[in-house]
Amino acid sequence: MSMPKDFIDTNELTAEQILAIEDLAIAMKKAIKVDGYYPHLLRNKSLGMIFQQVSTRTRLSFETAMCDLGGHAQFYGPGTIQLGGHESLEDTARVMGDLLDIMMARVDRHKDVVGLAAGSAAPVLNGMSEYNHPTQEIGDLLTMIENLPEGKKIQDCKLAFIGDATQVCVSLMFIASKIGMDFVQFGPKGHTIPDGALHVGTPEERAEFGKQLMAVGEANCKESGGTITISDDIECIKGADFVYTDVWYGLYDEEVSGDNYMDIFYPKYQVTMDMMNFAGPESKFMHCLPATRNEEVVDEVMDDPERSLCWVEAENRKHSIRALLATFGHRTPLNDEGVDYSAKDELHAALTKIEELQA
Amino acid sequence: MSMPKDFIDTNELTAEQILAIEDLAIAMKKAIKVDGYYPHLLRNKSLGMIFQQVSTRTRLSFETAMCDLGGHAQFYGPGTIQLGGHESLEDTARVMGDLLDIMMARVDRHKDVVGLAAGSAAPVLNGMSEYNHPTQEIGDLLTMIENLPEGKKIQDCKLAFIGDATQVCVSLMFIASKIGMDFVQFGPKGHTIPDGALHVGTPEERAEFGKQLMAVGEANCKESGGTITISDDIECIKGADFVYTDVWYGLYDEEVSGDNYMDIFYPKYQVTMDMMNFAGPESKFMHCLPATRNEEVVDEVMDDPERSLCWVEAENRKHSIRALLATFGHRTPLNDEGVDYSAKDELHAALTKIEELQA
Amino acid sequence: MSMPKDFIDTNELTAEQILAIEDLAIAMKKAIKVDGYYPHLLRNKSLGMIFQQVSTRTRLSFETAMCDLGGHAQFYGPGTIQLGGHESLEDTARVMGDLLDIMMARVDRHKDVVGLAAGSAAPVLNGMSEYNHPTQEIGDLLTMIENLPEGKKIQDCKLAFIGDATQVCVSLMFIASKIGMDFVQFGPKGHTIPDGALHVGTPEERAEFGKQLMAVGEANCKESGGTITISDDIECIKGADFVYTDVWYGLYDEEVSGDNYMDIFYPKYQVTMDMMNFAGPESKFMHCLPATRNEEVVDEVMDDPERSLCWVEAENRKHSIRALLATFGHRTPLNDEGVDYSAKDELHAALTKIEELQA
Repeated sequence: MSMPKDFIDTNELTAEQILAIEDLAIAMKKAIKVDGYYPHLLRNKSLGMIFQQVSTRTRLSFETAMCDLGGHAQFYGPGTIQLGGHESLEDTARVMGDLLDIMMARVDRHKDVVGLAAGSAAPVLNGMSEYNHPTQEIGDLLTMIENLPEGKKIQDCKLAFIGDATQVCVSLMFIASKIGMDFVQFGPKGHTIPDGALHVGTPEERAEFGKQLMAVGEANCKESGGTITISDDIECIKGADFVYTDVWYGLYDEEVSGDNYMDIFYPKYQVTMDMMNFAGPESKFMHCLPATRNEEVVDEVMDDPERSLCWVEAENRKHSIRALLATFGHRTPLNDEGVDYSAKDELHAALTKIEELQA
Repeated sequence: MSMPKDFIDTNELTAEQILAIEDLAIAMKKAIKVDGYYPHLLRNKSLGMIFQQVSTRTRLSFETAMCDLGGHAQFYGPGTIQLGGHESLEDTARVMGDLLDIMMARVDRHKDVVGLAAGSAAPVLNGMSEYNHPTQEIGDLLTMIENLPEGKKIQDCKLAFIGDATQVCVSLMFIASKIGMDFVQFGPKGHTIPDGALHVGTPEERAEFGKQLMAVGEANCKESGGTITISDDIECIKGADFVYTDVWYGLYDEEVSGDNYMDIFYPKYQVTMDMMNFAGPESKFMHCLPATRNEEVVDEVMDDPERSLCWVEAENRKHSIRALLATFGHRTPLNDEGVDYSAKDELHAALTKIEELQA
Repeated sequence: MSMPKDFIDTNELTAEQILAIEDLAIAMKKAIKVDGYYPHLLRNKSLGMIFQQVSTRTRLSFETAMCDLGGHAQFYGPGTIQLGGHESLEDTARVMGDLLDIMMARVDRHKDVVGLAAGSAAPVLNGMSEYNHPTQEIGDLLTMIENLPEGKKIQDCKLAFIGDATQVCVSLMFIASKIGMDFVQFGPKGHTIPDGALHVGTPEERAEFGKQLMAVGEANCKESGGTITISDDIECIKGADFVYTDVWYGLYDEEVSGDNYMDIFYPKYQVTMDMMNFAGPESKFMHCLPATRNEEVVDEVMDDPERSLCWVEAENRKHSIRALLATFGHRTPLNDEGVDYSAKDELHAALTKIEELQA
């Protein structure tokens, strides 16, 4: 499968393509953090960032990453660019795609980032929609690969998501099943992927939608050998290498009838050190952040230097997004002749692999 | 006539100066798009962009162009900088001009960009006022020069503007008359340059103002040999090489008594393929965008790959603004010794010409 | 005393450290303005700028300075980043500090910039709080050093602040006493540092706070040999080398019961040419700007090319902030081998001194 022009959904990539992006991320992270060498793969290039919702870490990561690559990021905040109003989305996309080298968009509705990509000659990266959060997926997979249990490959690992079927939960199901991991959602009925994902639409639409989401994951598993388990019985998290949670309130809550989230999730789905140890004595904690401390996770877990990966995971947003920009953007040649740095062989090998996959 | 410090109004430039800027735009467009060579003529320089109104393509074009030239653009959106409030406009201009290398401003009132330029040591570019839109003029002229009818010079061409006397219409009249083209506005009484331009002020002020606008254009024609025709008879567009339109609602509408624009302009002033062919079998369509499809122009015209120039015109905002920044900014030396690129001779020649005109 | 990680309060620095920063500012100003050589000491580095309040000159200065140093500044305006809401301030600081190389924050409350610095691995610069304005101090000291009276050292100079005990007034008291200058506030009872500083809190809190502020300044004087005088008798300004004023309304006015500022300060505390001459025939005028012309200062003083330093002072915000960024940021090596510029020896000497003080 050739690599798509845009990065909208990890389900449009193969496992091999995804792992090649992770290798590039690892090589560039080492080059910059260890060697102080900045690979200017997008030198002179301009990234347009469209944010229909306020964001801290995604914007910081894109803007810093673009700068690291020798390019420049332009910020278009909420209300500054209309996607599909007086001017059609296709027309806006066409013009922006000719004025920019690459774009990213965090959108209210997934169809808008899809339309932006369809109309634009420049590549478009999905910075989160109500449907999925693929840059988070790539960063989280990077974090797991960097923190594999002794002797295990990523394909052998088990990832347990605790709590509500947010778009982060759905996205983790996508990438875990794509890679061939064992994915578990431990959550209450009515808030799991098949029966209550994503908080958008009527109950009937959501039930129908849940079936579609599961079908995507199951198709991935058929290809990869991964598994998907959905349960409200804590037994399902046993053996998990990674225990992941997200906040208990959603961005789209105002659009659905509101139950009290504490009543639904607390205390059963709060990540405590007991739960971590129930999963396994060396299980690692992950969270996309921001967290509401002592709601979905207790301080003891979040701040444990051995068990908590959430801080390195946050920093990995930057490192993984840098690799996405370098993969999907029109690269300038790597100008490191005569420059010596420890990650040089890895970086050249990672780039060669990406180029092969895009050929 | 020596070149002014600021770019506020194309009427302050000679035709020769304007065409020298277009030549620079063409050479840099080729260097970047064809050769991948970025001329860092404003390396390390900082552009301040003041937007009193939201804008997409003007901001995108300035920010990308500044980055292409090796500099950096700072965005000051609506509400972030006051021009003439508690602090006088002159004082704000003086301070900003010392902290920045170059500025642009899109303003509600023309006097504010004039005052900014007067108070600032740094050059100021007008990114649109209620009076004119000179960066649009330079981009549109670039588009016409790149798409001349076989065997014609730009001075021989006829440009027909269809519809309302917006500031884009007035601006096109300015540049066409300056260059020596034949300019036509085909529009309804009460909405033409002499009797209803720009939508600002009382009817009396606007009538008086229309006379001043026409006088500027006619003075240009006297110098250049161009002509200006205003009519509500479609015969006037016959022989037009370029047929241009703009939206039928104005930015300043809320300030004037509102008629229903559809009643006034539709269907007579809608650009259709019949109208295009009435102008001439090879006439080209232009629009500053954004367009309201199937109001002022039908899809068939806008999307015709042979007849419609509106997309390349939108991209040319960037290419022409890059030339304006490089002309009016304090240039760093072009560091291309030993670099080989196809546009090299053209670019050096274009820069030499600009330097002569500024000497 | 070793140099702190962050630049929050000049009272945490020694006079020697502060003067070393000023020397670096002077050397870099000369390199850029005179020689056109840009020292890329923060090449590829990303600065995050958090503004809880709108600002013009501080933002302009940081963004331009960062660009001059080869880095990039990201702007986070009011409302885009919450410091201490749903996510704790410590957690936000930790994540931002890992995604950025350096940060600055203009905050509503001083404790927030302190907390940001405490939680972040990256250095944090205070861009103004309700308590102090240390980047203004460094720029103002630079301006005074560049404009010393014939034969005087900065330690021998007298600085008279006229009017209200704003955070700029308090900040000037801090730096003047730190350096060993004679500092005077000439202001009305109820609006001086010991009895009415900073406009925040209840009258009791402010009285208590005024005592703390004076104690800080007096401790500085004990070390430096400086003096602090607070008086409503104009005699106190006699002999002042620098006469400084600020606007008569405060950012925090809405939080305290409002008197009419004109009644309190006018005409006694308006800076006129008579007042300037009363201070001394060659006294220089300073103002942090923006000014309300003909309220706290008359045009004749502000626009006098010999007596008014307020314009060079405004430009010095950029030059001094550049030195702060280069001092507190993680520097990239100065790559000027083979490059010849007049400020080269000074710049190398200034950097060597900073490195010694940070060793």
